[in-house]
Amino acid sequence: MATETERKFLVTSDAWREGPPGMRICQGYLSLDPGRTVRVRIAGEKAFLTIKGATSGVSRQEFEYAIPLDDARALLDLCVPSPVDKIRHERQHGAHLWEVDEFLGANAGLVVAEIELEDADEEFDHPEWLGGEVSDDPRYYNASLARQPWSEWGA
Amino acid sequence: MATETERKFLVTSDAWREGPPGMRICQGYLSLDPGRTVRVRIAGEKAFLTIKGATSGVSRQEFEYAIPLDDARALLDLCVPSPVDKIRHERQHGAHLWEVDEFLGANAGLVVAEIELEDADEEFDHPEWLGGEVSDDPRYYNASLARQPWSEWGA
Repeated sequence: MATETERKFLVTSDAWREGPPGMRICQGYLSLDPGRTVRVRIAGEKAFLTIKGATSGVSRQEFEYAIPLDDARALLDLCVPSPVDKIRHERQHGAHLWEVDEFLGANAGLVVAEIELEDADEEFDHPEWLGGEVSDDPRYYNASLARQPWSEWGA
Repeated sequence: MATETERKFLVTSDAWREGPPGMRICQGYLSLDPGRTVRVRIAGEKAFLTIKGATSGVSRQEFEYAIPLDDARALLDLCVPSPVDKIRHERQHGAHLWEVDEFLGANAGLVVAEIELEDADEEFDHPEWLGGEVSDDPRYYNASLARQPWSEWGA
C-alpha cells in the first residue's frame, strides 16, 4: 500500500508536445465509488489492478497489483461503461517528472498534467504550458471522466 | 481467469460437524455490483482479491489474485459495510469435497454447503445433512449477506 500525493493541472498550450512518444493507456472501472475505486489498466503491454481509497486533500491510499494482460482484457469487458482512453507523455521539468495525459474518445480535447510529490507542500517549477490547478475538482478524476466524459460537460 | 461452476445448498442437521477444524474467513466487498463483484478475503494467514462477473446459470467468471495480508487488512477498512465472517469446514463425501460455511456475526445461524463441479450437469452424492438447493437464490450470495445479513431476513 502506498499513499500517493498528486497535483493535477490543466494544460494551456501545445508547448509540451516536443519530446519522446507517449504510451497508450486504456482503463476501466469495476467500482466508481470514490471511497473504493477499482481500476483495470492496460498501459502498453503491462496490466494492473488498482484500488484507491477516498481522497483526503491531495493524498489518497493506493494499492496496485500487476495482473496478466489477458485477465485485464477480460476484466475491461466487465467494467462499467465506458473505458477511458488516453496517451500518457512523460516530460521532465526541473527536478520533477510530469505526466501529460492527452485524452482520446469521448474525452478528446482534454489534456491534463500530473505531478507526484513527496508531500502536499513540496515546491516545483511550473512549465510554461501549465494552466490552472484542478486537483480538487472531482470532475477531472479519471473515474469521473468514465462516467461523464469531458465532451458532455457543456450539455 | 477461471469459470467456476458451483452449486449451493442449505444444511439441515449438525451431522457434518464431525471432522477436522475449519478455517476462519473474513471477507468484505469493494463492489457489490453483481456484474462486477470485487471481494477482499482473509482466509487463515492468506489473503486474496477476487473479481467475479455476472452469474450465468450456475457458472461465473472469476479472477483471483494473492495479495499481502497487510494490504488485505487495510482494504477491508475500505470495504462497504459490513464484512462477512464465517468458518469454512471441508468435508469429503464420495468423490467430492464440500465446503460447509458456518456464518458468524450478523449471519450467525446460517450454514450452507457448496460444491464445485466440472459442469452444471455433473452428478454427485448427497450427504445426509444436505437440504434444499439455493444456487439460484441471490439472497445467499455472500455479497448479498454483506448487504442484508441473514438475521434481518425475517424483518
